[in-house]
Amino acid sequence: MNFASDNTTGAAPEIAAALARANSTPHAMPYGADPWTRGLATKFSRLFEREVAVFPVATGTAAYVLGLSLALPTYGGVFCLESSHIYGDEVTATEMYTGGARPIALPGVEGKLLAPELARAIAQHRPNNTHAVQPAAVSITQISEFGHIYSPGEIARLAKLAKRHKLVVHMDGARFANAVAALDCRPADITWRAGVDILSFGGTKNGCFGAEAVVVFDKARAASFLYRRQRAGHTFSKMRFLSAQLDAYVQKGLWLELARHANAMMRRLANGLARISDIELHHMPRANLLFANLPNAIWRGLEKAGFTFYHWGNAHWHTARLVTAFSTDPADVDRFVEAARAAGSGRKAKRPMTFLSRF
Amino acid sequence: MNFASDNTTGAAPEIAAALARANSTPHAMPYGADPWTRGLATKFSRLFEREVAVFPVATGTAAYVLGLSLALPTYGGVFCLESSHIYGDEVTATEMYTGGARPIALPGVEGKLLAPELARAIAQHRPNNTHAVQPAAVSITQISEFGHIYSPGEIARLAKLAKRHKLVVHMDGARFANAVAALDCRPADITWRAGVDILSFGGTKNGCFGAEAVVVFDKARAASFLYRRQRAGHTFSKMRFLSAQLDAYVQKGLWLELARHANAMMRRLANGLARISDIELHHMPRANLLFANLPNAIWRGLEKAGFTFYHWGNAHWHTARLVTAFSTDPADVDRFVEAARAAGSGRKAKRPMTFLSRF
Amino acid sequence: MNFASDNTTGAAPEIAAALARANSTPHAMPYGADPWTRGLATKFSRLFEREVAVFPVATGTAAYVLGLSLALPTYGGVFCLESSHIYGDEVTATEMYTGGARPIALPGVEGKLLAPELARAIAQHRPNNTHAVQPAAVSITQISEFGHIYSPGEIARLAKLAKRHKLVVHMDGARFANAVAALDCRPADITWRAGVDILSFGGTKNGCFGAEAVVVFDKARAASFLYRRQRAGHTFSKMRFLSAQLDAYVQKGLWLELARHANAMMRRLANGLARISDIELHHMPRANLLFANLPNAIWRGLEKAGFTFYHWGNAHWHTARLVTAFSTDPADVDRFVEAARAAGSGRKAKRPMTFLSRF
Amino acid sequence: MNFASDNTTGAAPEIAAALARANSTPHAMPYGADPWTRGLATKFSRLFEREVAVFPVATGTAAYVLGLSLALPTYGGVFCLESSHIYGDEVTATEMYTGGARPIALPGVEGKLLAPELARAIAQHRPNNTHAVQPAAVSITQISEFGHIYSPGEIARLAKLAKRHKLVVHMDGARFANAVAALDCRPADITWRAGVDILSFGGTKNGCFGAEAVVVFDKARAASFLYRRQRAGHTFSKMRFLSAQLDAYVQKGLWLELARHANAMMRRLANGLARISDIELHHMPRANLLFANLPNAIWRGLEKAGFTFYHWGNAHWHTARLVTAFSTDPADVDRFVEAARAAGSGRKAKRPMTFLSRF
Repeated sequence: MNFASDNTTGAAPEIAAALARANSTPHAMPYGADPWTRGLATKFSRLFEREVAVFPVATGTAAYVLGLSLALPTYGGVFCLESSHIYGDEVTATEMYTGGARPIALPGVEGKLLAPELARAIAQHRPNNTHAVQPAAVSITQISEFGHIYSPGEIARLAKLAKRHKLVVHMDGARFANAVAALDCRPADITWRAGVDILSFGGTKNGCFGAEAVVVFDKARAASFLYRRQRAGHTFSKMRFLSAQLDAYVQKGLWLELARHANAMMRRLANGLARISDIELHHMPRANLLFANLPNAIWRGLEKAGFTFYHWGNAHWHTARLVTAFSTDPADVDRFVEAARAAGSGRKAKRPMTFLSRF
Repeated sequence: MNFASDNTTGAAPEIAAALARANSTPHAMPYGADPWTRGLATKFSRLFEREVAVFPVATGTAAYVLGLSLALPTYGGVFCLESSHIYGDEVTATEMYTGGARPIALPGVEGKLLAPELARAIAQHRPNNTHAVQPAAVSITQISEFGHIYSPGEIARLAKLAKRHKLVVHMDGARFANAVAALDCRPADITWRAGVDILSFGGTKNGCFGAEAVVVFDKARAASFLYRRQRAGHTFSKMRFLSAQLDAYVQKGLWLELARHANAMMRRLANGLARISDIELHHMPRANLLFANLPNAIWRGLEKAGFTFYHWGNAHWHTARLVTAFSTDPADVDRFVEAARAAGSGRKAKRPMTFLSRF
Repeated sequence: MNFASDNTTGAAPEIAAALARANSTPHAMPYGADPWTRGLATKFSRLFEREVAVFPVATGTAAYVLGLSLALPTYGGVFCLESSHIYGDEVTATEMYTGGARPIALPGVEGKLLAPELARAIAQHRPNNTHAVQPAAVSITQISEFGHIYSPGEIARLAKLAKRHKLVVHMDGARFANAVAALDCRPADITWRAGVDILSFGGTKNGCFGAEAVVVFDKARAASFLYRRQRAGHTFSKMRFLSAQLDAYVQKGLWLELARHANAMMRRLANGLARISDIELHHMPRANLLFANLPNAIWRGLEKAGFTFYHWGNAHWHTARLVTAFSTDPADVDRFVEAARAAGSGRKAKRPMTFLSRF
Repeated sequence: MNFASDNTTGAAPEIAAALARANSTPHAMPYGADPWTRGLATKFSRLFEREVAVFPVATGTAAYVLGLSLALPTYGGVFCLESSHIYGDEVTATEMYTGGARPIALPGVEGKLLAPELARAIAQHRPNNTHAVQPAAVSITQISEFGHIYSPGEIARLAKLAKRHKLVVHMDGARFANAVAALDCRPADITWRAGVDILSFGGTKNGCFGAEAVVVFDKARAASFLYRRQRAGHTFSKMRFLSAQLDAYVQKGLWLELARHANAMMRRLANGLARISDIELHHMPRANLLFANLPNAIWRGLEKAGFTFYHWGNAHWHTARLVTAFSTDPADVDRFVEAARAAGSGRKAKRPMTFLSRF
């Protein structure tokens, strides 16, 4: 029973079936010259209600550093959060894919970059000063690494500011589906309509074996993409096996259905935990990520009961990161809540829950 | 009916089954902390009869440029053939993965680098001259891009020379299985026993969806590999789906069985074509690649009959590159030969075949 | 009358004479195969009381990024201050010279990195975690960008900590001479004896036309330096013109004599300004940099009187950065103090001065 | 008596005087904000008869790789000769400055790239094929590494072809002055009027201490230059010392006067050697480089007489590379010829000379 991450899951049955179907054709031309890959442009253009360029890759890292490489000259910088993957979790991938550009870490609130902070950072980084890294892009993560969601308005404010300074707006959407499902909005509303230029559209965490799409809203900006993907070793010869996953993923709203389940499982989990007096939730989750402070007894009880999740903290504080996924079994959620309750002091929460926002 | 490349195939049934099995476990820890990935070291060490370091990646390009990045400082060069993938087919991947090292193209014979040519190149590239790119590695492709096979002795001669000059020996083994099958040797015989330091062990062309293993024979040399793979975006979160393919691939000799079939299909094809007087074979293939000169009539006849293959040449000469694979249907081979014969002049070859070696 | 920076100066007469002498020889072999360059190793080894490797370059940036490139793998990071040149003033030079390693900015006190902050940063950057930039080096600036000096003990504490974590210790010594002069120590005391591995030994700000020396205390570490300098375009064909400057610079203690003058001029300036009640000095300078808060009237008065210096601040606060140099005329210092006094309120400071330490 | 290279010389008296004058001003603002640097745009625009962007740097390598970095994306290639400095003499400088683009070596005639060879190379390198390095620039060396000169027509033919394929045309003009002097043309005739986009305008070999100018004929193309130069560590704080050299160099035609002397000295040398029967000249030089085959006796005689020059060849053939410079003493030339004659067989050449063109 694993609440460690949505990347510990396998593939959804529909995705597995699509892969098997793609494998039933004995031959397909390589490197994207196959019907599955060729069909993606139409499907993603429909999904985003405008003509877009779309490119399958197999990992989230590849998706966002290839996307960023379209925006960053070697002397440029991309503003991001200290908690973002491009800053803290991919070694020096941004540097490698851009020939030496710099990710610049800013502080966030709830894992979100706010416009005043961006404004301050732009000013500090001295545009047009030839001694300074030149602000060239801003990258935000939707949903945030702390489970919060940028509203269309928040994105628009950031993007407007970015554009005034000629920054390209990039969105790391490893959990984009969870955001669209939670906001119940159209994909366009939190991307190009709000000012996003390049999106990493995640599939892996939400039911694919390993498939992400780089979506570039202004097709002209993507002119060099194929050369960049090739030199990065991310052009699959049997690309139909990536594209078939993405094709099934966006078919008939599967991606949103899967994300809605993940989000619902998280609500069920949070509602359960909120009633346990010893547990402090950092926020009431709308998507599929939750951080919660657990007393030692509950911590040990859950581990003993066989639950896996990440421990953030140290000897002095204990925070569990809990993640649900497209495949989370409601019975597992209930068992988790029950195990937490059993390990706790038995007191019921007076107030229904505690909101904290530590990050 | 596709003889264009072994990369137009799908996955072998055993590999597809292994993937499905890996997907039947609801959860596995990410980034390689799963039983499939953890088991690879033992399995590959057994396969190669010594303790090796092994790392799954999803593409051949990633496999060999990550491998090369272990050997090349930013001021170094890797000797390779002009026909090699690392020189001519991956844009500037070598440069990207090494921070600016240089692939240096040498002429080959039958797609193979020969020791005297390597000796000449090392001398010309002025080791220890601080104005010159420093020779740091040599990369050879087994089987060669023209379908020929390096013998253990040929590899040993190259490697001995390389080591005298402190060059790391790298083997691009996208079709390594076809070579081992054709030579009927042990994998060690054409790798570390002959002096190879780093191997790209290919799976994709021979029955995997997309899986290759970087095998490093001296484990100490691999110390930085995981950082390098991470920054390249080639560390899969659901890595078990790569590792499960590789696991099944090397299980009970599947990889060699698949390769033997591909090689046998090529022999059948070559034997058939060799009896057609208008066709010139460049060599009598032992592995699964063949180049053959076709007169216009046969060319058009084959295309009309629905066969796909690559055309190398121009208005003045026509060479077909023909590739068989693990999944090639012998009936398709026979149909190909029959279609060629039907489209030809009808004359039987007097001599059973023509050997040429153009490349 | 320029107090903006020591880089607005020309060359000291002794350096100019040395250049002229080097030019009086009609020919010298290029790229360092000349007697001036060849003689540097002995002279710098004597200066530092151990055998060192030494390499002339023409700019401070080149000196420290070439030095750092010896210490940083492409997946590594170097800890430095946000105020350091390698972080904030050279665009993405560190990234360029290392193939994509990352400068990581830490907060400092008085422009100095302190050991507890370094310890915290090392822990946070997760050594051996393959998702994280790997701590590989620490770079400190002596004297600091805010005019403070690391004591031998402070350096030793940092270096001891660094070495426990296998970090290379780099010192940006653009104003190294001013530190040695102020501390009245031996060059070895604040370099290798305290644990420094690589030093940028600055000459340009202290009397050279443009000459810096990269000093590597463990010669084995410098094995690749010449290749790196060559590919960076920093190997001068007429290298004797760099080396002749450095040769004269370290001859008979000229470098320290020049630095002592600069430091003395700064003391004279600070002593004068400290007696003016409206002026707040950030610290009592021991080297040649001073930050001082000036009221508007004094600011305008100094500018009107023809003094040039950098203005740090905004509408709400005004800080002057004042720099003296080897060539500063004491009469100019006195005129500066007099102009400040004249433009001020005329009140004498009750306390002799105000110490602040803003940075 | 050194005929090894024009880079073994010192600085011309006029350049030395200009440097001394620039040093007599006690202060100048740094990084190019000085009157010398600011005046270069006007002077070079006049020299080239159009508005140009011009940037001083200190080495030839820096000049041409910074220039090339304006033209080369990370997935691009620059065609050059195998004998060119950017290919063979600067380790991997091109790769470093471009984030991984590739110099592609082509064969030349007399050290010159010819249009048919370029056409063939462009076709071979598969423009728009996403597996191939994309042709992005062509770089030629004027005068060539073998002492030959591109005529305006030859350049125009190359440039026209280049432009048809959208390649940027770059000229490495380390000895540009010698070419203009020999052709007796206007600088524009062999640069922008013939289609050159970016020029390295060399000063170092022809009388400067170390000063080169990057000249960009379309100013818009140079927009990112200052950021690139800064991150490369080639922005001098005391930039006036570079600019003062360049300023004096182009003043009143000094650069051409110096080059004319160098060329005249070479003619004198070649005329003398041509009369010696045992010596074979590779060509009758118009600029300041000559290759000549010398019998062993003459070789040894010249070395014994104290002459220094580079030996190209091996046990079986001996070619001397002879270079004259702005400072070559005609008496030294005569001594060289006399020493060669004395060491030879004494036979006078029947034909006045032998023309060969080995390279």
